[in-house]
Amino acid sequence: MVHVEQRSGLTKRLKHNNEDFGYDMSSANVEPEDDLTPDSAPVFSKYEDFHTIDWQRDLARDRLRHKFIVAKKHDFPLGLLYSMWDAGSGWICVLLVGLAAGAVAGIIDIGARWMSDLKDGICADRFWLDREHCCWSSNDSFYKDFDCNAWTTWPEMLHYYDKDFFYHTLEFLFYVGWSVIMAGLTVTLVKVFAPYACGSGIPEIKCILSGFVIRGYLGKWTFIIKSVGLILASASGLSLGKEGPMVHLACCIGNIFSYFFPKYGMNEAKKREILSASAAAGVSVAFGAPIGGVMFSLEEASYYFPLKTMWRSFFCALVAGIILRIVNPFGSDQTSLFHVDYSMKWTFIELIPFAGLGLFGGILGSIFIWSNIKWCRFRKTNKILGGNPIYEVLIVAGLTSAIAFNNPYTRKSASALIKQLFDRCGPEDYMQDLCDYQNKTFSSDKVDDNYHTGEFGTGVQNAFWQLIVALICKLLFTIYTFGVKVPSGLFVPSMAMGAIAGRLVGITMEGIIASLKQYGGHNDMWTCQIGKDCVMPGLYAMVGAAAVLGGVTRMTVSLVVIMFELTGSLEFIVPTMVAVMFAKWVGDAICSLGIYDAHIELNGYPFLDNKGEYPYSTVAMQVMKPGTGNDGLRVIYQDSMTVGDIETLLRETDHNGFPVVVSEENMFLVGFCTRRDIQLALASARKTQSYVVTSSIVIFTNATPEPSSSGDPAPLKLRKLMDLAPMTITDQTPMETVIDMFRKLGLRQVLVTKNGRLLGIITKKDILQFMKRSQH
Amino acid sequence: MVHVEQRSGLTKRLKHNNEDFGYDMSSANVEPEDDLTPDSAPVFSKYEDFHTIDWQRDLARDRLRHKFIVAKKHDFPLGLLYSMWDAGSGWICVLLVGLAAGAVAGIIDIGARWMSDLKDGICADRFWLDREHCCWSSNDSFYKDFDCNAWTTWPEMLHYYDKDFFYHTLEFLFYVGWSVIMAGLTVTLVKVFAPYACGSGIPEIKCILSGFVIRGYLGKWTFIIKSVGLILASASGLSLGKEGPMVHLACCIGNIFSYFFPKYGMNEAKKREILSASAAAGVSVAFGAPIGGVMFSLEEASYYFPLKTMWRSFFCALVAGIILRIVNPFGSDQTSLFHVDYSMKWTFIELIPFAGLGLFGGILGSIFIWSNIKWCRFRKTNKILGGNPIYEVLIVAGLTSAIAFNNPYTRKSASALIKQLFDRCGPEDYMQDLCDYQNKTFSSDKVDDNYHTGEFGTGVQNAFWQLIVALICKLLFTIYTFGVKVPSGLFVPSMAMGAIAGRLVGITMEGIIASLKQYGGHNDMWTCQIGKDCVMPGLYAMVGAAAVLGGVTRMTVSLVVIMFELTGSLEFIVPTMVAVMFAKWVGDAICSLGIYDAHIELNGYPFLDNKGEYPYSTVAMQVMKPGTGNDGLRVIYQDSMTVGDIETLLRETDHNGFPVVVSEENMFLVGFCTRRDIQLALASARKTQSYVVTSSIVIFTNATPEPSSSGDPAPLKLRKLMDLAPMTITDQTPMETVIDMFRKLGLRQVLVTKNGRLLGIITKKDILQFMKRSQH
Repeated sequence: MVHVEQRSGLTKRLKHNNEDFGYDMSSANVEPEDDLTPDSAPVFSKYEDFHTIDWQRDLARDRLRHKFIVAKKHDFPLGLLYSMWDAGSGWICVLLVGLAAGAVAGIIDIGARWMSDLKDGICADRFWLDREHCCWSSNDSFYKDFDCNAWTTWPEMLHYYDKDFFYHTLEFLFYVGWSVIMAGLTVTLVKVFAPYACGSGIPEIKCILSGFVIRGYLGKWTFIIKSVGLILASASGLSLGKEGPMVHLACCIGNIFSYFFPKYGMNEAKKREILSASAAAGVSVAFGAPIGGVMFSLEEASYYFPLKTMWRSFFCALVAGIILRIVNPFGSDQTSLFHVDYSMKWTFIELIPFAGLGLFGGILGSIFIWSNIKWCRFRKTNKILGGNPIYEVLIVAGLTSAIAFNNPYTRKSASALIKQLFDRCGPEDYMQDLCDYQNKTFSSDKVDDNYHTGEFGTGVQNAFWQLIVALICKLLFTIYTFGVKVPSGLFVPSMAMGAIAGRLVGITMEGIIASLKQYGGHNDMWTCQIGKDCVMPGLYAMVGAAAVLGGVTRMTVSLVVIMFELTGSLEFIVPTMVAVMFAKWVGDAICSLGIYDAHIELNGYPFLDNKGEYPYSTVAMQVMKPGTGNDGLRVIYQDSMTVGDIETLLRETDHNGFPVVVSEENMFLVGFCTRRDIQLALASARKTQSYVVTSSIVIFTNATPEPSSSGDPAPLKLRKLMDLAPMTITDQTPMETVIDMFRKLGLRQVLVTKNGRLLGIITKKDILQFMKRSQH
Repeated sequence: MVHVEQRSGLTKRLKHNNEDFGYDMSSANVEPEDDLTPDSAPVFSKYEDFHTIDWQRDLARDRLRHKFIVAKKHDFPLGLLYSMWDAGSGWICVLLVGLAAGAVAGIIDIGARWMSDLKDGICADRFWLDREHCCWSSNDSFYKDFDCNAWTTWPEMLHYYDKDFFYHTLEFLFYVGWSVIMAGLTVTLVKVFAPYACGSGIPEIKCILSGFVIRGYLGKWTFIIKSVGLILASASGLSLGKEGPMVHLACCIGNIFSYFFPKYGMNEAKKREILSASAAAGVSVAFGAPIGGVMFSLEEASYYFPLKTMWRSFFCALVAGIILRIVNPFGSDQTSLFHVDYSMKWTFIELIPFAGLGLFGGILGSIFIWSNIKWCRFRKTNKILGGNPIYEVLIVAGLTSAIAFNNPYTRKSASALIKQLFDRCGPEDYMQDLCDYQNKTFSSDKVDDNYHTGEFGTGVQNAFWQLIVALICKLLFTIYTFGVKVPSGLFVPSMAMGAIAGRLVGITMEGIIASLKQYGGHNDMWTCQIGKDCVMPGLYAMVGAAAVLGGVTRMTVSLVVIMFELTGSLEFIVPTMVAVMFAKWVGDAICSLGIYDAHIELNGYPFLDNKGEYPYSTVAMQVMKPGTGNDGLRVIYQDSMTVGDIETLLRETDHNGFPVVVSEENMFLVGFCTRRDIQLALASARKTQSYVVTSSIVIFTNATPEPSSSGDPAPLKLRKLMDLAPMTITDQTPMETVIDMFRKLGLRQVLVTKNGRLLGIITKKDILQFMKRSQH
């Protein structure tokens, strides 16, 4: 309701943005009351929507605020207390964010599981339990794959017990119906209440952390709708994950809590410190991986990540992780999502198939990125598809669930599938298809990874083909799903694809080894020995999951750490690392952008990547505006322009700031004024100071000009508006250095000079355009 | 031998440095042949000893080199191959560094153990075995604390078997004698061959990574002598660890290998990428903690740490860790140094004693830093002590071993002590004093942490007092040892102190809980339940170790990650984190610098910390040279100075560079020239170009001056020498911004302008002096 106007505004804005990099020249709308002297405590930095913040200015403002508090510390009794509160508020804020993120994640996990299981049936006695808990609470001594008596499928609820064609049709209809209803509900909620709640949110979080302002993107409405939508979307059976959106939700929490702490809420640059910590907490609760969360925030999400923020992020991620464990949504007391409770042994020779999985991950990831971007671009340009997001979601949900229903591996939730694929075949798993090996060893009939021949039973062969079908379906589903107007992440779908591929490779390797051994004279009495000649398909599934996720997201260290924490297995670092490395190299060779960067480019966000190296041989002069042949540079002369002149200048241009120089003949730089400051100052002067007329001289110097003739109106002094320390470079500065300055110092523009004379200006927009030009 | 002159040079240099921040104004000795055009491939950046590098310039040089290679790629058949080699050389280099670091660490570990055990005795049958392996190889079915028959003590070697007073005296003499001999050997080796091999090396590594050049600090002699010295020093029984020096050794390896790859060896800025990875590998092999190593490099060691370097560091650290595990120096097949093979349960209420341990760690760390710095300063100023490092080491070694001999906890090696303190009391440990509890439960006589009453036997009481003595001794020993002229780290000694303190607290807590329970009516039949009311002293020891290490080094995230990998226990993150957090807060409140930063300050290295925030209210104008009242700024005029003028300027000043301006009346900045460039250019011009005389005009413009009169000599053109893109700021730029620019861009100087006119210059030295001034 409240966001409808905003959304249409967004659409318009983004459309406009696709042409010119999606943002204006970035003006800081500093109220002129913000007097930058330590007498007052200026804290509020407000920017317009879709503008870029000025890190240096915001941080300077925070330092002033801090000085003000330190100075007042001994003035009144509560000063010391206030100073302590100020010093500790960062920690308190991230503590609260951690607590809230953990709790929210717990609720969403519980809700999503329950709603998701409703596709199949309901717990007859205790309707509020999901399938797993329902079976636990029942008295069945034995059940396979959580199929117990207490759990009642929908046909059974209708008192139809014969498992004939009609039963399965009923089951199918309930399954697809529920999926479509949930998907429809989600997309409607998102469309009506919070259009920003769709997607994974990570591309936008990256932009926001890099200094872009998107109003409402981290607001309470987005938070509420995305939380609810995430539960519904997970229940809809669409091929999507909750993990990416969790990061977005955690950042919403961070943003909301930061408003309780003016130090952060009122200062966009400082707020991003909290948001960095929130992103870490988001990954922490998504995967139960606090260290991985910090590494994710460092490597993937954050832009400005000083060590202090890192330490706070760690704290925040840890608190969130602890809370999630206390909430214990899975009821399993487990620290990690896909806990592996057996030690993984591997031989060095196996690094070859692991590298092969990395290769596959890189290729699959690139195919995914390419197809997904193509599809999203088609959706943007196509009227029918772009105008009817609800129908699109309904069709995708219907198709997904209808197809997924027929394959046991696509039918179950992606995380359950991953768990199953990561697991080894223990003695208790003999009923599973995946563990149906020819078992000729020892007295026991039970199957065990450690003691089987590696010869496949029909079950494994059956599972093999089903897994191949599942892989293809998952890939297609995910390509069409990532980008529709529902909250949707792709960590878990990517991992599921990878796990399937990895398990397939693992089973193949197992077969090859078994054949080799039989050929080598070890006949049917041979059993493998762990760590020597035993292939563990579960390990391959893990490595495959990491490889495909690496190929899709192009994460490196953080991915390895997440996988390591996810499975709790240290032994497992080397294979993962090899696979992720190959996936990254191969992926980068095929298609240089990760999925998030590709979506950033697709949406035209002004994101200045802080990773790449740019070997250009250009100097600042060739990039600056005005370039050769353009209009002259529009500047303000420090003591010779009238109010009318400046008003004309403002009218004629749409620049967001103007350099102030000495005079037309002496283009020596004095300072820099933002458009909005001048506008507000002139307007207020016109209103309140009656002597200001169109012909009044505006002066930016300290000197009082001698009254040239008695008839002249009194001058208007605006020196205080001027930023006396604009960043300057010389015209011969290499562009690599300029880009480095923009990235590391968080600039919005630099002024280009030659022999002291102002020649031009380079804005972030110019940099991005230049980088795009030199790419193509 | 080869380093004697160097060392005396160092002493002189450092003495001089203590007054003026230990470095010159940082000149890049770029050979004028290094023509910065893509026609040639300029790679070599050479700096003088004790100078600071110019990151921007070096990175620009590397980009040019890269462009050159890309341009030549298709020119000749091997071009593509060479280009691939160039792209992969970074990975190959860190791979080699990892391999070498792992192997070296393995050899040092084996050697140090063997030499260390020789203090007590020798393996009679197989003299090359250390005590543990000797006992393993013997046929004894049972031995306590590795005291088996195959292991022969020195008195036994002399066929003296009665364990009377004479036996113990003999034992004592051998113990102390061996210690003193080893210590004397170490310090002599270090003094004669490689003075840089002493200490932990981490402060210097930090400076080197921040861009300081210390020739020979990472050279092959330092490497060889430090490796040998480390083995001997570990055997000497001095209170020192091998872990810090391992980082130094790994960096030596990185430096040596980088010379095989001109891309890195010839470019100081690029070389530091390899060194960052090496530092990670060093920590990885020291603790068996690859992720912790990367975090250490990121948090503590490195300055410029782009993500690409992080990923390479991870690879390097992992390779080193794998090699170390293959070498398997401890013969235990264990992944971590102090592996804990039981799950740690703790209750939330225990966070209070954990926080208390953090507090203690902060205080103890501060006491240590303060005393150690006082002592080191005393050593520097005192003639007798400073002039006789060998006697000092001999005395310290003699005292340490004589005192340590009498206490079982100081007598054993620090890492064995830590391992013992971290362990829980299992059923097999009933002979240890530490595990001598009143044991009244169950049928078994064996003691088990899970099933004992918490009432102490005499053994525990005995151990309690011995541990207190051990703690005090360790503290005093380490204060006097860290800083003597032998290779010495302080990770393990600090951890040992912390582990003792933690175990003491743990035992106390155990006693308190037991008394409470008995008081509450649970009489002697009460046994504790893990995770509910059972205190595990081993966990307290771990937390204490982390707390003291945190108090001493002020590391945060990296410390938690190292502890986590060290013990392999995820459960353990929260207690460690709480303790480390309190240690950091309390430590910072008492004494703001960690031990490494304190030593950097003590030695007067020009290290610009990249962590702190500096709330100054100063602007560039107040810091720049020349300040008000100083001499005028010495500059070069672009087209009006003669060769003689410039030679006078060079003679009269010792600045390492000069700004070039338009003219005396128009102080508009044109560029910047380094002293050495001008010197070399003038000298070579005088030699080779006969028309250059003292009255020749030197011009820095492109324009050819009209010949004013026929008698004038031809001008000398030096435009190519000039850096056309010097960094400039305006006089009103806040100092925080200036410091930020220096840190993030790796600058050596900025030029201060006002309205385009050059006003002054700020060098890194000025910044450091300013920061020191505002601290006091």
